[in-house]
Amino acid sequence: MSKTSPGRFFEDYQVGQVIRHAIPRTIAEGERALYHALYPARHALYSSDEFAVDCGLDGSPMDDLLAFHVVFGKTVPDISLNAIANLGYAEGRWLRPVWPGDTLRAESEVIGLRENSNGKSGIVWVRTRGLNQMGDAVLEYVRWAMVRKRDPAAPAPETVVPDLAKVVAAQDLVVPEGLDFSRYDFDLAGEPHRWGDYEIGETIDHVDGVTVEEAEHMLATRLWQNTAKVHFDATIREDGKRLIYGGHVISMARALSFNGLANAQVMVALNAGAHANPCHAGDTIRAWSEVLDKAPTDAPGIGAIRLRLVAHKGAAGELPLRDQAGAYAPEVLLDLDYWALIPL
Amino acid sequence: MSKTSPGRFFEDYQVGQVIRHAIPRTIAEGERALYHALYPARHALYSSDEFAVDCGLDGSPMDDLLAFHVVFGKTVPDISLNAIANLGYAEGRWLRPVWPGDTLRAESEVIGLRENSNGKSGIVWVRTRGLNQMGDAVLEYVRWAMVRKRDPAAPAPETVVPDLAKVVAAQDLVVPEGLDFSRYDFDLAGEPHRWGDYEIGETIDHVDGVTVEEAEHMLATRLWQNTAKVHFDATIREDGKRLIYGGHVISMARALSFNGLANAQVMVALNAGAHANPCHAGDTIRAWSEVLDKAPTDAPGIGAIRLRLVAHKGAAGELPLRDQAGAYAPEVLLDLDYWALIPL
Amino acid sequence: MSKTSPGRFFEDYQVGQVIRHAIPRTIAEGERALYHALYPARHALYSSDEFAVDCGLDGSPMDDLLAFHVVFGKTVPDISLNAIANLGYAEGRWLRPVWPGDTLRAESEVIGLRENSNGKSGIVWVRTRGLNQMGDAVLEYVRWAMVRKRDPAAPAPETVVPDLAKVVAAQDLVVPEGLDFSRYDFDLAGEPHRWGDYEIGETIDHVDGVTVEEAEHMLATRLWQNTAKVHFDATIREDGKRLIYGGHVISMARALSFNGLANAQVMVALNAGAHANPCHAGDTIRAWSEVLDKAPTDAPGIGAIRLRLVAHKGAAGELPLRDQAGAYAPEVLLDLDYWALIPL
Repeated sequence: MSKTSPGRFFEDYQVGQVIRHAIPRTIAEGERALYHALYPARHALYSSDEFAVDCGLDGSPMDDLLAFHVVFGKTVPDISLNAIANLGYAEGRWLRPVWPGDTLRAESEVIGLRENSNGKSGIVWVRTRGLNQMGDAVLEYVRWAMVRKRDPAAPAPETVVPDLAKVVAAQDLVVPEGLDFSRYDFDLAGEPHRWGDYEIGETIDHVDGVTVEEAEHMLATRLWQNTAKVHFDATIREDGKRLIYGGHVISMARALSFNGLANAQVMVALNAGAHANPCHAGDTIRAWSEVLDKAPTDAPGIGAIRLRLVAHKGAAGELPLRDQAGAYAPEVLLDLDYWALIPL
Repeated sequence: MSKTSPGRFFEDYQVGQVIRHAIPRTIAEGERALYHALYPARHALYSSDEFAVDCGLDGSPMDDLLAFHVVFGKTVPDISLNAIANLGYAEGRWLRPVWPGDTLRAESEVIGLRENSNGKSGIVWVRTRGLNQMGDAVLEYVRWAMVRKRDPAAPAPETVVPDLAKVVAAQDLVVPEGLDFSRYDFDLAGEPHRWGDYEIGETIDHVDGVTVEEAEHMLATRLWQNTAKVHFDATIREDGKRLIYGGHVISMARALSFNGLANAQVMVALNAGAHANPCHAGDTIRAWSEVLDKAPTDAPGIGAIRLRLVAHKGAAGELPLRDQAGAYAPEVLLDLDYWALIPL
Repeated sequence: MSKTSPGRFFEDYQVGQVIRHAIPRTIAEGERALYHALYPARHALYSSDEFAVDCGLDGSPMDDLLAFHVVFGKTVPDISLNAIANLGYAEGRWLRPVWPGDTLRAESEVIGLRENSNGKSGIVWVRTRGLNQMGDAVLEYVRWAMVRKRDPAAPAPETVVPDLAKVVAAQDLVVPEGLDFSRYDFDLAGEPHRWGDYEIGETIDHVDGVTVEEAEHMLATRLWQNTAKVHFDATIREDGKRLIYGGHVISMARALSFNGLANAQVMVALNAGAHANPCHAGDTIRAWSEVLDKAPTDAPGIGAIRLRLVAHKGAAGELPLRDQAGAYAPEVLLDLDYWALIPL
């Protein structure tokens, strides 16, 4: 019998099944530094222990997306090794900061299944939770992917499509314990814009662009222990290009968004997300944001802002999204909807 | 007089000579993270402090090959700066885990010399020991390399060819103090296969492939402070490609072998090794293993497994090794023979 | 109003103005490891805690140039986002080691302004200080850059050209507290050459060459949070090459200078520096040094050596500098003048 795992196929999932993902991972200063080398990340709360202490924390936590990538990476061998596409995210929330030295593991519950009409694949919905060494949840999110069937003749499961919130409600956002923006230093943070300065509907072109290289996205994707071979094996495509992990685009875009959203420090919810088109080495990633909503929080000096973050490989100065038919423009890479915390 | 060192030539070595290599190196969380970014390393004992504690250790040690590379790197300026080829390894043993914060240095004793019949070069055998800041040996191994003579007219030394064991005997393997696999968590480790599930003669295709980039192998080779210029200077070869450090291939293949050998956690001996063909950027590295032997150990729940690890740049699904004449097939990069510890 | 910053233009500066730069940065083991992966850095004091303790320090400090790059990076958004060229450095001194865990921030004072005769740009001189979390200065230096005017019609400021020392005087060099080279281990450091072995006027070809890749310089430049888009966006130039951050060349050359200057451990002053020509991916960087001066210090066993460090992309074995007209030869990348500490 083969010792290597072929991954799970569509017929291997049942609604209610809980998968305990393998390979817990301790994350420390080294992962933090690599995150800052791979992405132009500059949010002060995640750059400086001093700044974080002045904001009521014990020190600088790990970047929120770093925690997301590590948890996501754990799920790949069980969820998306045979995925045709990663279709979406919903109901994502960061529940607790991850600190240097924490060990993360992940669990997923299958919450939905729907076979495709072609009988060759189906959609699997899972709710994934990342846990630290104390067993406390640090984040949770739903994602769904289209997964191949091993045997097209296998019977279709009962269709269960979960009822997912379009947006995480503002009252469900979890502010990290102790966080206090009432003495926030806007000079050190890099920009003067506060919660009240952003208007719903406002768009921000983040100006900068980063051309991505094969070596970089592979370093990142390995760091998250994401094993999907399309990211590493140049012999899969005729042009020798590897498919860049969608999370690499998310982190690149979020880091680029510093320029205009430097004070949107903390990601607290992932409302929705679509990897609109594939990204390859040589693409120059640019980003723009739209303010979708704003909400107060109970925490001192802290407001919430809901943002659309679009990554694209179009020309500088453009803000592409959809064509006239409503489909994503071909240069759009990512359309992400998230809540962040920002000083009032 | 020139201030730069031209390295040692064949006539600079005498049997019995002990070389204390330069530049001790403190290794910490950063090196660990880089190792995990450079290779798809996922063995749980080296990924998670929690998993390591549950296996009786104080925390997660540094990857065994990371320690090997650091020690090997120290020896390059003294041993292989003028080497034509790195010919082999024998009698390698890991003697003690390396922990974050340890400082490693290295010493080598010349144990063999044989001038080649062409009078232009010779073979140098050295036994190298890596030592931590307490002066305790963390690993030792013999390697031999073909080294240029400075002066072809220099007289040949007396030929001394060391008598080297073909394989480290199972009773000489050193199990890290405290290691206990009796409550090993196979779910978290990623695969269910234990010592008893592997049969001598069994082969395992590790399935995945990684296409290597110039930036990656240079980052790795610099991290080990290996200064051999063929790895860095594109002007040496006409095609501008740099020769990839053989150890980069070892670590890549070992990490790829997770898929099928996830529980072969700890490398404890290096019986033999050959860099069969050079590796260059653009090559896609794949790996397969053969179970060569098995042995019990006295440690709780721990068996030893002797593995052949072959890295190649051939097509997916192939298990190349030698041609009909017994020579390595041209796509074979590495043929490594090692002992690992695996739960019973 | 746009939320993104266009950077400052020439008319935004006034002599006497103090700019407190944004985004403090905590630097730890991860940044150290990345520095050693990006450059072939091998100076023992920065490689081994044990070696550093034997030299009277509490442990191995962060590489001096790493501290310089982090401080420099902080200044980019305020000083050189609209710079046409970074023209020079003077009066640079390292004042205090940076330790893992330190948080650095930066301040600059405008000390000179001179509009160019074309009315489209001007030269801005700033004195920058890097500060740690205690508010103690860790380094200071003057740099000047040619900066675009936003509005060519804006009136020229009064010309103020600061009177800068050509060289930091030997008596102004700051030896790190406790540093003691009286029991220096030359074997472990890698070379036998001491202060007395170097003669003023002596040149050293550092022999090795490193071909640079896009992925590497971008990792480095992001790590220093340097946001100048020319380093990242391949669409700016027709050939798709990005301009490599000049500091990347400085660190590469300094690391290459180990071979011949292994004992010039500590950089204590930056007397002058010119980025003679741009560097791009694919260039093979080589380096040579010239001993410009020597001076004693009051510290035990420690001398100072003033060095010219030249990085070039010419052939191996060449020591290019200037053409007959006195201009930099086209293959010269960097001409740096610094003081280092070396055992007597």
